[in-house]
Formats: sequence, C-alpha cells, structure tokens
Amino acid sequence: MQPTSPTAILLISCPDRTGLVAAVTRFILEHNGNIVALDQHVDIEEGVFFMRVEWTLDSLDIPGDAISARFNAEVAAPLKMQFALHFSDHAERMAIFVSKQGHCLYDLLSRWQSGEWRVHIPLIISNHQDLEPVARQFGVEFRYFPINAGNKREMEDKQLALLSVVKPDFIVLARYMQIVSPKFVEQFPNRLINIHHSFLPAFIGAKPYHAAYGRGVKIIGATSHYVTAELDAGPIIEQDVIRVNHKDSVDELIRKGKDVEKLVLSRAVLYHLRKQVLIYKNKTVVFG
Amino acid sequence: MQPTSPTAILLISCPDRTGLVAAVTRFILEHNGNIVALDQHVDIEEGVFFMRVEWTLDSLDIPGDAISARFNAEVAAPLKMQFALHFSDHAERMAIFVSKQGHCLYDLLSRWQSGEWRVHIPLIISNHQDLEPVARQFGVEFRYFPINAGNKREMEDKQLALLSVVKPDFIVLARYMQIVSPKFVEQFPNRLINIHHSFLPAFIGAKPYHAAYGRGVKIIGATSHYVTAELDAGPIIEQDVIRVNHKDSVDELIRKGKDVEKLVLSRAVLYHLRKQVLIYKNKTVVFG
Amino acid sequence: MQPTSPTAILLISCPDRTGLVAAVTRFILEHNGNIVALDQHVDIEEGVFFMRVEWTLDSLDIPGDAISARFNAEVAAPLKMQFALHFSDHAERMAIFVSKQGHCLYDLLSRWQSGEWRVHIPLIISNHQDLEPVARQFGVEFRYFPINAGNKREMEDKQLALLSVVKPDFIVLARYMQIVSPKFVEQFPNRLINIHHSFLPAFIGAKPYHAAYGRGVKIIGATSHYVTAELDAGPIIEQDVIRVNHKDSVDELIRKGKDVEKLVLSRAVLYHLRKQVLIYKNKTVVFG
Amino acid sequence: MQPTSPTAILLISCPDRTGLVAAVTRFILEHNGNIVALDQHVDIEEGVFFMRVEWTLDSLDIPGDAISARFNAEVAAPLKMQFALHFSDHAERMAIFVSKQGHCLYDLLSRWQSGEWRVHIPLIISNHQDLEPVARQFGVEFRYFPINAGNKREMEDKQLALLSVVKPDFIVLARYMQIVSPKFVEQFPNRLINIHHSFLPAFIGAKPYHAAYGRGVKIIGATSHYVTAELDAGPIIEQDVIRVNHKDSVDELIRKGKDVEKLVLSRAVLYHLRKQVLIYKNKTVVFG
Repeated sequence: MQPTSPTAILLISCPDRTGLVAAVTRFILEHNGNIVALDQHVDIEEGVFFMRVEWTLDSLDIPGDAISARFNAEVAAPLKMQFALHFSDHAERMAIFVSKQGHCLYDLLSRWQSGEWRVHIPLIISNHQDLEPVARQFGVEFRYFPINAGNKREMEDKQLALLSVVKPDFIVLARYMQIVSPKFVEQFPNRLINIHHSFLPAFIGAKPYHAAYGRGVKIIGATSHYVTAELDAGPIIEQDVIRVNHKDSVDELIRKGKDVEKLVLSRAVLYHLRKQVLIYKNKTVVFG
Repeated sequence: MQPTSPTAILLISCPDRTGLVAAVTRFILEHNGNIVALDQHVDIEEGVFFMRVEWTLDSLDIPGDAISARFNAEVAAPLKMQFALHFSDHAERMAIFVSKQGHCLYDLLSRWQSGEWRVHIPLIISNHQDLEPVARQFGVEFRYFPINAGNKREMEDKQLALLSVVKPDFIVLARYMQIVSPKFVEQFPNRLINIHHSFLPAFIGAKPYHAAYGRGVKIIGATSHYVTAELDAGPIIEQDVIRVNHKDSVDELIRKGKDVEKLVLSRAVLYHLRKQVLIYKNKTVVFG
Repeated sequence: MQPTSPTAILLISCPDRTGLVAAVTRFILEHNGNIVALDQHVDIEEGVFFMRVEWTLDSLDIPGDAISARFNAEVAAPLKMQFALHFSDHAERMAIFVSKQGHCLYDLLSRWQSGEWRVHIPLIISNHQDLEPVARQFGVEFRYFPINAGNKREMEDKQLALLSVVKPDFIVLARYMQIVSPKFVEQFPNRLINIHHSFLPAFIGAKPYHAAYGRGVKIIGATSHYVTAELDAGPIIEQDVIRVNHKDSVDELIRKGKDVEKLVLSRAVLYHLRKQVLIYKNKTVVFG
Repeated sequence: MQPTSPTAILLISCPDRTGLVAAVTRFILEHNGNIVALDQHVDIEEGVFFMRVEWTLDSLDIPGDAISARFNAEVAAPLKMQFALHFSDHAERMAIFVSKQGHCLYDLLSRWQSGEWRVHIPLIISNHQDLEPVARQFGVEFRYFPINAGNKREMEDKQLALLSVVKPDFIVLARYMQIVSPKFVEQFPNRLINIHHSFLPAFIGAKPYHAAYGRGVKIIGATSHYVTAELDAGPIIEQDVIRVNHKDSVDELIRKGKDVEKLVLSRAVLYHLRKQVLIYKNKTVVFG
C-alpha cells in the first residue's frame, strides 16, 4: 500500500467466471506495469467478482489517458466488466456539509491542511453559522443556507445549484443534521458519505445516544455509510465502537461518541479517497 | 477485588440523599470490618443511589448470619434501603439450558471444572440430545425435553417442576434456541441470564448473523442480558464485538461470533456470581 | 460524572485504615454538600488508600476558599491524609510542546477552541517552525527554540525562563521529539504529560514504528504518561492500540498510529483536567 | 473463505517480478480450476512475493496427487517459486504440550471435539499430572514427563522419541511452562506454535503479568508465535489485548489474561490449520 511513485488503480466488478484475475494481470504485465497491490473478492452467493489492482506507471507502455480505452478494448468489454480507473496522484474535490458540531469538521480539515490526505476542499456548506469561523480559519469557503421548516426544498435547490458550479467529486456529511432529499441523493450516487452517531442498524434516526442511554447498552458506536434514499440504510463503509458503562450520562455518551464519529468518518473518507471501496447491492467491499 | 479471606458483599439501592455512603461505611467500621472494595453510583436522572461494598469478615464483631438483621435495623430500614447480602465463600447453584451448539456450554463447564469459578452446576437441560455426551463427560446431569410445536407448554411445565426440585440460584441460557414463556420468566426474576448472538438492540430475534451479513455491517457482536417478558429486551449485563469484513460469509460470521458469545456470556455470569450487578428499570449497574 | 453546576473535587491518598471513606463523606454531609461522584481504591499490597470525591457547592455551608483549611483541620490532619482540592469551574493553563508533526496539536487545539474542554492554552513551544502557522491560525502564541546538538542546555534554560513567566499549570509534550532534561522534569512533577508512539514498555525510545515493523507485531499502540527522569518510564495514564497486518508498511503504521496517539493523548489530558488521576510509586489510579 | 467442497490451497513465495499472479492463475484456469480465494502480498523492501490461492477440485483436469508435480514443472520451477500444496479435506495431526493451567487446553479440545476444527489430536504431553483427567475425559492420550532441574535433556529426548512415533504435523505449546531446547525447536521448524502471556515484545520471559502490574500498564495482551531458538522472539502469528485498570490485582490480570490467551492461541492454530500463514525472515504474512 502507498507506493511513492504515481500508480493507476483499477476497480472492477463483473459476473464471476474463471480467468478474470489472469486476464487483468496479463494486461498489466504485457504493458510493462508492476503490480503493487492486488485484491480480489468473489461474492459466491451473488456470483459477482470484485477486484482492485494498483500498479506503477513508470514503465507502462501506454500513456495514462489511453489506459482506460485500451483496458476496455482488450479486457473489460470482452469479459463484460464494469470498471473505474483512478490515478493516485489525482486529488479529488471534497465538499463538506456541517451543522453546529465541529469535531468531524476539525478532523477533516486538519488532515487536509497538514497534508495527511491528498484532497481539495473547495467548499463547506452549513444550515447554521456556528462553524463559519472554523472554515475561515482554515481558509475554506463557507456558505450558509438558513434552512427552516418552510424552505427546505428551496434551500436544497440552491445548494445543488452551488454544487453544480463547484463540482465536487464527492460530498461528506460531517454531522449535518438535515435529511437530504431523494433528489439530492440521486445527484451523488455512491459519492455522498455520511456519519451516523450509532452502531447501525441499532438506533436509526434522531438522538441515538439518548436511545443508547435508555436501552442501557455497554458499547456505543458510529457508522459511516454512503447515503441512499432510505434513512441510515445505505452501504456501510466503516464502523467502530467504544465501551461505556453505567456511570456515563447521556452527555458523557455524546462526548465519548464524538471521538468514535470523527475517526470512523475520517477512515471512511480515506478508503474512498484511496479507491479501496466497491459497492454492490447496498453493501461495500473495502479492500485493506 | 478478590481478597483471599471470605468477605461479605452488600448490594444496596435506595432513593438518593446525603449521607448514604457514610451511613453504610460507618456501620462496617463500627463493627470492625475492613472494606476491600466500595463502589457507588447515583443515577441523577432517576434520583437513585446504588452501592456495592465488600469487607472482610475476620474481625467483624457480628456473626455472619446476624449481619443482615443488624444492618437492616441500624441502617437500611431507617434509610429505606433495599439491600442484598452475599458471602464470597458461598457457591451458587447454576442450571444451564442448551440446544445443539456447544461452544458456550464448553466454556462454562471448563471454568467450573478447572476451579476458575466458585459455582455448582447441578443440571443441564436441553431440547436436543446432541450435547448429552458433553454433559456426561463433565459429570453433570443432563435432562432432555423433546420440545415441538405442540408440546411447548407441557414441556416447560415439566422443566419448571424439575427446577423446583433442583432449586438453582440462577439459570443460564447458553444458546438455548427456544423462547421461554412469561410464566417461566416470572419464576426467575433477575436470575435468568441469556446470550443473544448480536449487538443488541441491532438484530433482535432469529438469525442475527444472516441479518448482519445482509446489512453489510463491519462489526458483529454478542449481548448477555437478564431475560424479561419482552424478547431480547431485558437489562444488558455485558456486550462485546469483533470486526468482520466483506470476505466473511455467513458461516464465517457465525464462527467468529461464537468466540464473542462465549466470552460475553462467561463475563456476564462471572459478574453475576461476584455480585457486581444491580438492576434498576431495565438497566444494569455493573461495578468493576 | 459532569454535573452542570460547579463542584469541588478532592483527591486523597493516605495509609489505609478503617473509616476513611466514612470520615470524608461525613465531612461533606455535615457541611451540606451533595456527593455526585465517589471513587475509592485500596492498594492492598502497598497499604495505601486513594479516593476521589466530587460534590456540589450550591448548598455547602463553607465558602470555597475555606474548604481546604476546614477539611485539613477536621479530617486530613488527624488522619494523616495527603489531599488536593480542585474546583470544576476553574480552567487550568496548559502549555504545549511540539516538533514537526501536527496531528496531536490539531486535536488538542480543536478540543479547546470548540469548547469541548475547559482549559487555557497560553503558549506553544517548538524546536521547529513548521507548526507556527497552525498556532497562529488558532490564535495561540508560538515560541520557536532552535535546538541543536550544541545548545540544548541553553535553549532549555530559555524555555524554563519563559515558562516561569507564563506559569502553566501543566505541560503537554505533543510529539515533542526532544528528550527533556532531569532539571526540566523536576520543575513539573506530575505536571508533564507525554505521548509515546508505542505500547509501552514495548519499543522504548526512538523510531518505535520501525521497530514494530521489524518485529512483525499484529497490533501497535500509543502510551500517554507523566514524564520522569527515566526515559519513557513514568506513570502511565492511558494506552490504546490498533490492529495492523503484513500489508502495512512502516509509513502505514505511522499513519494508523497517529490516530491512536492523538486520541490517547487527548484522553490522558482530559483525565488530568478532570482530576481523575492520582499518582503513587510510578503508577496511576485513574478513576472513571 | 470456506467453500463446502474440497479445495486445494497453494502457498507461494519467491523473488518479486511481474507476471507472477498471472502465471499462477493461468495454470489454475487452464486446468479448469475455479478460484475461490486469492491473496497476494509483496514485501517491497525485501523484494519478495507471497501468494495464497485456493480453488475447487471438482472439475480440475489434474488428479490431486499430480498437482504438485505439474505446478512445479509448469510454473514454480521456471519462476523459482517455493511453494506448498495443501488440501482442505486433509486433517492435520496436532500434538499439545501443557503444564498445570488448563484454559488453553480446554479451548483447543472443545473446538476439536465439537467439530469446529478439522484436526486430529493424537497426544497431549505434560510435565505435570494435573491435566491428565482433562485429557482422559476428552479421550486423548496423555503422557507425563516429570521434568526437573537435572533431567531436562533426558526428558526432552524421550519426548522427541515419542513424537517421532506419533508424527504430529505440528505442535502447540498451550501454556507449557518449560523452555524447549534449540535441538527440539529444530525438529519442528515453523511447526511449533506457542502462546506467550504478554503483548510481545513487552514482558518477555517469566511472570509477565507481575511485570505488567509493576509497570502499571492500562492494557494487557497475549501473543501466539512460532517458536525459534531465541526466547519469545519467533514470528508472531496473532496478538490481542484487553483493558485493565488500577483495581486489577495481579490475580485479576492473570484471570483476564487467560481469556485473551486462549482466544489468541486458538485463532493462531486456526490460521495455521487453514494454511493462511506464510513465514519470511521472522515475520508472518497472515492472509485473512
């Protein structure tokens, strides 16, 4: 993982059959690529093949912008593969949505500013003004959309209009406390990452820490998932948990949970950035 | 924790007010006890005080069988405390219910046979004969109740009749795949411990590993709780989890989950045996 | 934990004997305090008693600035207790030392700026200029001390001179890659918190991730401890770990480890801020 | 993982070069095998390639006993690969060494007896007689070697003589409290699995829980590794940890640690049985 020279990354899925790995690796081999990571997975029940392969570009005998067409012609089309090609030196554009709580936002911005992640953050959108100073301090544009019961659709349309100009590659809902509409979700298929403050599918919806406190659980968690039309039901990218006990008030659950939330969201975003995630039928394959 | 000479353990709950800890510790002090563990907890929302205190009996100026009456007269009655007194050298009687899967049973029996736990196991009850050789090998009586759709009530009555003779202090449902009736539950209030093979409240009911597989969770878990009339909804004693990924088939989830189940159940049973658990309004206080 | 109105917190240690809890709680009771948290621990081997008790000040019949003297006269002196009294509404002054890596610094500053912690941060000291923009962005004074092989003692004297003006209550070494001298350590007994990037006592000293990679461990960790004269050997406040595998290069261990480091350090600082930590003979009692 | 029909498993290592995956998968494809699991890893620093591939045998056009020779001729020899071929329906012979503590032994025997593992256990060897009843109860031969300071070499020779008759495929030291000699280790290269009751490399050697208690660590662990001539320094297969705190006496650390030990050892044995482990230069590649 993480070679220093630029690499190409292929994400592939198709009906399972023999020879798929051989066909892909032969293509890379014949064009002088050096594989640095190869993961494959077969969902036997569904009969679907998944693969992630990463190779160095130094000695490849195909120019970067021709790889996709060549791979399609030589391998993907004959084998009915769906594929996506990425380059490790390309920085994607990530827009962030927040409300009032800043712990996830700070964590995302810190990783970006410190150079830990290769990403651009062109825009932060919020339904509150609380975090505008944070955005400004990190030098990121902040746009405020004062959503209320009456103007939700209108505000969302304005958000979409802004996003159509900013053109993010993907969006992160970093404790954005609004439910986005199906119309919005449709604009960003598999490109809208949320953090939910519970161990899904436990405690779907609002106030999960209050519900966890009421149920007397001994462990709380957080879940990062791609957003789909159904609330808190999209493909899960990452989850983690932390132990709690009878001493922990709801406020203490919220405090402990924040640390889990920010790490789980940041891990999910990193997996997305590194192109380690494939989605199939509401589940993810996350290659390590 | 775990002093070598015998100790008395008091579990106390009552409406919160000032001076409760002082009243209890003063009683022990004045009667020459030496406190080796003291935990207290106040549920501020409910206004309830919980306490566990353990002290050595060597130099106590009250005989063991008189402590309860004296404590009641001098402290508990005036302060309207509910309390239970236990002695660390008393071994409780634990009955075990199983079905076909043996991993929890093996773990419980091994801890008992090796002397890790101070407990008696007078009886194993099952609705299948599969684990009879295991019971026999460990020298524990095994009784088979061939439950089917038509005879559930009758079989349960026979189980209750047997239990009324065996007189267990508490019962452990060690992957017993039958739902016990409210009538049964009533006989063993706060004395019926179950292991559920999911991270409750996620995946209540049957086949939680299949449900977890279907949802694509990244972590699975197990929950040990006291059984109440409502399915999988009783006070949680202990939970734990293990990480899974897209490679894990349902069978693999089941295999990984077994290890979590047996440890979580055994921890819960140990907390119960050591009198570390207090129950209040469907939640537990588990003193470490 | 965490009542909303101001509380007093007493940390007590003394030779163990009967009646200590009763004496302390009686004092609070008689002066009309309401205990919201009480933890005690007896180190049986050492014969030492530790206690943390927290109570509300609303109805206390002693003014805040007289509690210490009264408690000393009525309880501590007669019983030979060592004690420290703190108030939950007092914000301590925390100085931070850093070198080039910013992940811990960002985490500390974010918690402070967002109001998650009640603390003041009057000063950041570094032997490199890299993180000065981060300090400036958060509005905290940054002082650069260009330490080299020849001027270590001199630079440290200047740091001490500055600290004697700034007067921090405690200092956090947030991945400060210099070994501080015994003279420095002596100035801040039990008030100098370090994060070491390994699971101590494994991999003491420099380059622990390289050593972990070389040894082929399956789990890496981080340790926050009070600094003493002996390298990486002071009382441990908090530790945590993360799973790694053969795919993880040294760079990947470093990346994964950073997340553990920042959380472990921040948890240790919070325990210190909340006065949950007592130190005895190079070990800590950390009350939950 | 875990297909229901028998599979072949190839473990491969060789100097890294392009086309290795393609060569192996092409061989399986051309002989009509269906790959159900494929993992590969490149140690970039060492320039070594590792691979585990598992495929179904149903439609393979080579008989099982000819696969090795054919693979060698067509792939391994030309590419200078080292490889080992295994079949999932072959049950290996596992000998177990124990001393007085039975928790790991119970766990191993339970998994074997319940059919959780496909393995044979022809022999248990011990330097104490304590666990003979456990062996007998599970129907496994138990041989007692009364080792003392004067007869260590002689006893080990007798053990080796017995093992040369029993011919185990591998040996598990399940809390065997004797250090085996280099001569013994040499007989079972990469086939001798130990459980050490600490988080290695912390607390090498005797009484790690006492050392952990003395150091005041907040987490304890266990490590399973292949035994080499150097004490506790062989390739690590698996590690895990559990949180402890100031309340935990040495006895309590020992009790908590036992649960970690038995799970870590059993996971390591399972990885070994499933042929998920490759060893290189004192480190392991454990394919998930």
